[in-house]
Amino acid sequence: MIKHSANNSASPAIQINVSRGPIVESRHLVNAVVSDASGAIVKSWGNIDKPVYLRSAIKLLQALPLLESGAAEAFDVSEKEISLACASHTGEDIHVTAVTSWLNRLGLSVDNLECGSHWPTYRPAERALASSGQSPNPAHNNCSGKHTGFLATALHLGDGLKGYIDLKHPVQKRLVKILEDFTEMDLSDAPVGIDGCSIPTLGIPLDRAALAIAKFADPDKLPKSRAEACKRIQAAIAKEPTMIAGSDRLCTALNGSADGAVIAKVGAEGVYLAALPEQGLGIALKAIDGTTRAAEVALGAILEDLDIMTESMHSKMDAFIHPNMENWNKIEVGTMSASLGG
Amino acid sequence: MIKHSANNSASPAIQINVSRGPIVESRHLVNAVVSDASGAIVKSWGNIDKPVYLRSAIKLLQALPLLESGAAEAFDVSEKEISLACASHTGEDIHVTAVTSWLNRLGLSVDNLECGSHWPTYRPAERALASSGQSPNPAHNNCSGKHTGFLATALHLGDGLKGYIDLKHPVQKRLVKILEDFTEMDLSDAPVGIDGCSIPTLGIPLDRAALAIAKFADPDKLPKSRAEACKRIQAAIAKEPTMIAGSDRLCTALNGSADGAVIAKVGAEGVYLAALPEQGLGIALKAIDGTTRAAEVALGAILEDLDIMTESMHSKMDAFIHPNMENWNKIEVGTMSASLGG
Repeated sequence: MIKHSANNSASPAIQINVSRGPIVESRHLVNAVVSDASGAIVKSWGNIDKPVYLRSAIKLLQALPLLESGAAEAFDVSEKEISLACASHTGEDIHVTAVTSWLNRLGLSVDNLECGSHWPTYRPAERALASSGQSPNPAHNNCSGKHTGFLATALHLGDGLKGYIDLKHPVQKRLVKILEDFTEMDLSDAPVGIDGCSIPTLGIPLDRAALAIAKFADPDKLPKSRAEACKRIQAAIAKEPTMIAGSDRLCTALNGSADGAVIAKVGAEGVYLAALPEQGLGIALKAIDGTTRAAEVALGAILEDLDIMTESMHSKMDAFIHPNMENWNKIEVGTMSASLGG
Repeated sequence: MIKHSANNSASPAIQINVSRGPIVESRHLVNAVVSDASGAIVKSWGNIDKPVYLRSAIKLLQALPLLESGAAEAFDVSEKEISLACASHTGEDIHVTAVTSWLNRLGLSVDNLECGSHWPTYRPAERALASSGQSPNPAHNNCSGKHTGFLATALHLGDGLKGYIDLKHPVQKRLVKILEDFTEMDLSDAPVGIDGCSIPTLGIPLDRAALAIAKFADPDKLPKSRAEACKRIQAAIAKEPTMIAGSDRLCTALNGSADGAVIAKVGAEGVYLAALPEQGLGIALKAIDGTTRAAEVALGAILEDLDIMTESMHSKMDAFIHPNMENWNKIEVGTMSASLGG
C-alpha cells in the first residue's frame, strides 16, 4: 500500500543542532515520515525503509485488544486506565495507585506483572519513595499500565496469565496480528528484540509504522469495532494526558494541549509515533542515535511544518521542542533547533 | 605544531552500533584523534579540525594552577583532593565529605562555591540523601572538587574569591593561558560557551586537544614545575580513582585499573580525553551526538587498538566499553560495539 513519491529518497534526515555559545556542540539526525491511511507518503526525511523497533511508541496500538476483546467493558475500565494502558509513566503516586487499584479490581496483584521493577523515572517521585523507606515494585515500572491491560485482556479471554510476555502467548500473538493488520505486512520474518519490560519488540520500517498510526488516526475504513476502539483510545489519552506519561514529559504536555488534534507516544531509543485524527495522518520518526531529546525536537518541527501547532500547544510543549538549556545556576547556556531541509 | 599525515582526512568517524536482537537499533559517530606531544598525529577518525567544547574532560589541565601556584603545598592538599579537583563526581558521601572538609580547612564553606547545586548523579546516593531528609548543597555538584581547587588557588594567590567563575577573573584567565600553552593556540577568538557549573568552556579542535593531553602525558619538555605538576596529578588520579568519579563510572574503573598507563577524564556531551604516559600519547574524542555511551565504547576501542588494555582493565571496564544491555528483568537484550574502520 505504500506509495513512494519519486523525490522521497532524496530528502536528507532531519538535523537537530544542539548549540552552546556561538557554536553547534552536538548534532543528531532523525529519520521521519508522514503518511496517510492509504499509505501515501506526504513527507519523509532520511531512511524510512529499514526496520526500526518502535518500542513503547507502539503502545497506542497495543491497547486495542483491551477494548476489542470486551475486557474493558467487562471490567469497567476507565479512561484513566485506558490512557495508562498506553503509558510509559513516570512512576508517580497517581500512576502507581491507579495500576494497583486496577489490578486489585481484577483480583490480581503486582505479583502478576512480569515487567520487572525499577525506581520511578521522575526523580522527585523516586526521592519521595526512598524517603518513605519503600522500594519500587512492578507497579512503578513505566510499562505497568500496559501490562495490566494485557492481564485484563488475558483474564477476560481465558488465556493463562503466566508467561504473557512471551511471543508465543496469545497476548503477544494478538499484538503481532494487530501490527500485521495495521502495517499491511507479513511480520513472520520481522526482526524481534526484547523490550525493557521483557515483551517482544518487532522491527518495522518507519513508512509502515507511519501507515499504521495513520490508520489509527483515521480508522473509519477499519472494521467498526476496531474503529471505535481507536477512537476511544484517542479520547482517553486526550482526556487523561497525565496517565500516559507524567510530570515533565512531552507526551503529557502534547496530548494535554492538542485538544485531540494530535495523539502521540514516545518510545525508547528516540522513537515517536503521532496520530493526527483531523488530518488523517500518521507520523513516525526515529533519532538514528537513539536520543529522546532529538526525537522530541524533531516531532515539534514536523508538527510546525504541518501547521498543527496552536498557541496552547506551544505554551506547554516549547520546553521540549524549543528547549533553552539551563545549567545548575539556571543560566541559559544553549538551545536546540531542527532543520527539515529542502 | 600539528602535523597532519596525508591520509587523515580520509578516515571516517568511529561508528558505534547499538544492537538489539538481530538488528542495529541505534548508531553513533565519534570523531577521535591520537597525538604525541610534538603534535604528530598517530591515528585519527572523522573530523578533528572543528572546535569542540572539551567540557569537564579538560579538568585534568584545570587542576594545574592548584599545584603550580604553590596552593597545594601551602594548604597541604592531599592526593584525594587533587583527584577530586579533576573530578566530575557522583555526589556520594565520600566526595561531599572530602569537599566540605577541604573547604573548611581553607576557612571557607559551600557558600563560596559558585557551581550551583544538584542532586547526586549516582542515584543510590540521591535516594540516601532524600531519605535522610536533606537537600543537595553545592558540595553535591559534580564539579565541587574542581571549584574548591579554584578557590584554594585564588585564596593562595590573593585573588578576590567572588566571581571566580567569570572569564575575566584571574582564576579563569590562568586556565585560558594554560590551554593556550598546551594547545599552542591563540585562544583569544576561540568560541566560548558556559559550562554546567557556570565556568567558561572554550572550543578547541580535537587535534589540539589531543596535543594538549599528550603534553600532559609526556611533560618532560615542559618547564620543570609544570612537568612535576602533571605527574602529581597523574599519580593522584591513579591512586585515588574513586575521587575523580565514583560508583558505576568508567573514569573510576579505568583510572583504577590501568596502573597509571592511562589517565582519563570524561566530559559532558560525549567527550573523553586520555593521557597515555608510557606511550607519550594523548587521545581526544567527541561523540558527534553528545552521548556518553558512545564516547565510552569508542575510548575502549581506541585503547584496544593501541594495545593498551590489560586483563585487569578489561575486568573493570568491560561493563562500559563492551556493555551487555540488560532490561528490568536482567535479561540481556543488546550489545554495543565499535567499528574503527580501516
